[in-house]
Amino acid sequence: MTLVACIGGGQLGRMLGLAGLPLGLSFRFLDPSPDACAREVGELVVAPYDDRDALDRLAVGAAVVTYEFENVPVEAAAGVKAIPGPRALEHGQDRLSEKELFRSLGIPTARFGGLEETGLPALVKTRRLGYDGKGQRRVDRDEPLEDGELAEELVAFDRELSIVGVRARDGETRFWPVGENVHREGILRVTRAPARDAPQVEAERICTRLLDALGYVGVIAVELFEAGGRLLANEFAPRVHNTAHWTIDGAETSQFENHLRAILGLPLGSTALRAPSVMVNVIGGIPPVEELLELPRAHLHLYGKAPRPGRKIGHVTLVDPDEETVARAVALASEEGGEARTTPPHSRVPPS
Amino acid sequence: MTLVACIGGGQLGRMLGLAGLPLGLSFRFLDPSPDACAREVGELVVAPYDDRDALDRLAVGAAVVTYEFENVPVEAAAGVKAIPGPRALEHGQDRLSEKELFRSLGIPTARFGGLEETGLPALVKTRRLGYDGKGQRRVDRDEPLEDGELAEELVAFDRELSIVGVRARDGETRFWPVGENVHREGILRVTRAPARDAPQVEAERICTRLLDALGYVGVIAVELFEAGGRLLANEFAPRVHNTAHWTIDGAETSQFENHLRAILGLPLGSTALRAPSVMVNVIGGIPPVEELLELPRAHLHLYGKAPRPGRKIGHVTLVDPDEETVARAVALASEEGGEARTTPPHSRVPPS
Repeated sequence: MTLVACIGGGQLGRMLGLAGLPLGLSFRFLDPSPDACAREVGELVVAPYDDRDALDRLAVGAAVVTYEFENVPVEAAAGVKAIPGPRALEHGQDRLSEKELFRSLGIPTARFGGLEETGLPALVKTRRLGYDGKGQRRVDRDEPLEDGELAEELVAFDRELSIVGVRARDGETRFWPVGENVHREGILRVTRAPARDAPQVEAERICTRLLDALGYVGVIAVELFEAGGRLLANEFAPRVHNTAHWTIDGAETSQFENHLRAILGLPLGSTALRAPSVMVNVIGGIPPVEELLELPRAHLHLYGKAPRPGRKIGHVTLVDPDEETVARAVALASEEGGEARTTPPHSRVPPS
Repeated sequence: MTLVACIGGGQLGRMLGLAGLPLGLSFRFLDPSPDACAREVGELVVAPYDDRDALDRLAVGAAVVTYEFENVPVEAAAGVKAIPGPRALEHGQDRLSEKELFRSLGIPTARFGGLEETGLPALVKTRRLGYDGKGQRRVDRDEPLEDGELAEELVAFDRELSIVGVRARDGETRFWPVGENVHREGILRVTRAPARDAPQVEAERICTRLLDALGYVGVIAVELFEAGGRLLANEFAPRVHNTAHWTIDGAETSQFENHLRAILGLPLGSTALRAPSVMVNVIGGIPPVEELLELPRAHLHLYGKAPRPGRKIGHVTLVDPDEETVARAVALASEEGGEARTTPPHSRVPPS
């Protein structure tokens, strides 16, 4: 049995497990929480991410170690030779270093640095550990930045896109169709793939440059702003990504399976589109499962996480939906609609 | 968390678990073997199938109890109110009762009974516990049948087909496209779906009659012989079935997900074809994973079972393949090609 070890045992780890078990793989996860939802598809080591002893227990006997979030301590990941390698993590954890990498590769970004570089208004972000809109504020007047803060030009973009790709050990790259993303309150709500009039070629060019520069192995995601017909790289994540969850149902090979294939040195699977797809995140409360499953060609993915306001607890992929179906799914999956429901309706079905 | 309990923890249970975890379900399995391969996707109760105490432990707290093979003791299944209900099990476990049910429903079958009914040559089978060609022999001369034996007309059929359908609690039925099956040495090797010139309407009519007569809830499979343009029902299995494993990759909703939806009283998912598919069983030894994954649009499903001659340890679904690809997959998945390999090649990949 081939064992894959993963730092982090959240929904991304869980979906890696669900994709990997059919490949004959087994899984072990490291997570500080004993409730980490990946525990249902593998062994769980409960410890902080920087616990050297726990990291050793995670890695023992594993064919490969990977991670499911970008804030893994670099030394921890390097100590167990995690893939993707430490360079991606280092750049991904520091917004300044990330943007400087983009710049050095000729990848356009919003202006960044101090307020004198960006002009006003600007977004001021912490350089480290920002996630889902946390740790950022809008600044309209000149003010001194604090230590560890970075200003970014406030771009009046037309839409947010993302390109998710995978690079194999031999350098082969493949990309899924560009997704078009809608955020609300700093949380991803909806991804449509492919994006309308997707700038696929340009997005792949940006992603390829990054992958090759990092000597990357595995799945990567680059978030992009489209502004006046131009693509600006916003940030990248050295891991499987929420904006490609639709690939489980809508692509020939999912991002999860291809990440595993890549890090294990197996041939990559086709990233071709099966059918246009719309992914809707389930945020906060358990949604009305029956009503979601009644939607045509709806594929539900709950993560086994306890409901909590603002928490991503699942997603629904709609295959080739009409706009009415999308609107219905968004309403059903929204926090407002689901907050009061903490038990899935089907748990009340008695055996007959 | 909604718990599904399943009698049997083999690959069918494992694939039910893989389909059900994304619906927010958790699983518990009962199996006499501590190595039962479904253990990777749920809790495992190790005990014989007729252990009353273990059955109680299996069922406690479960929203529903189901099973993954048709030789569950009827009293055991009935005692925990398993779905599908005991009538399907009773008929499915006894070839005579099964054929009499077909006959009573006006569903054509090969002649059966004693040799005087069937003529010679005939197939003589044990009435109970026959599986995968075990417990049957060809008889060319008149001879007395033993107690518990049943003769069947040896049909010179043109091909073997199967129809797999699902019936919801409210009586709604849905069917996947008819599959065309190739057996060798009594073991299913290949299923093509849809079958060429599939007699879909007639097959669905047969299956509907059976489902409605049994008041069935869940997935059922009916194996059919096509002979001279006529369909003869051979046998049915009151469970998810090997000839519909292709639905994981080739249909909008898999047989596994729809079985769970049905028994939990949730709306059924679409059974529409995504793309024509060919399923190739992996028999005996661990196959060369890298070569299988290099095949275009190949989807590998290993069950985490130890290799053993004649044992089904996985399958590969090929989406819309050409004949060369099918032949290649059959060669790679065959016992002869794989027997010597007991370790997946990717377990030899070192972390880098």
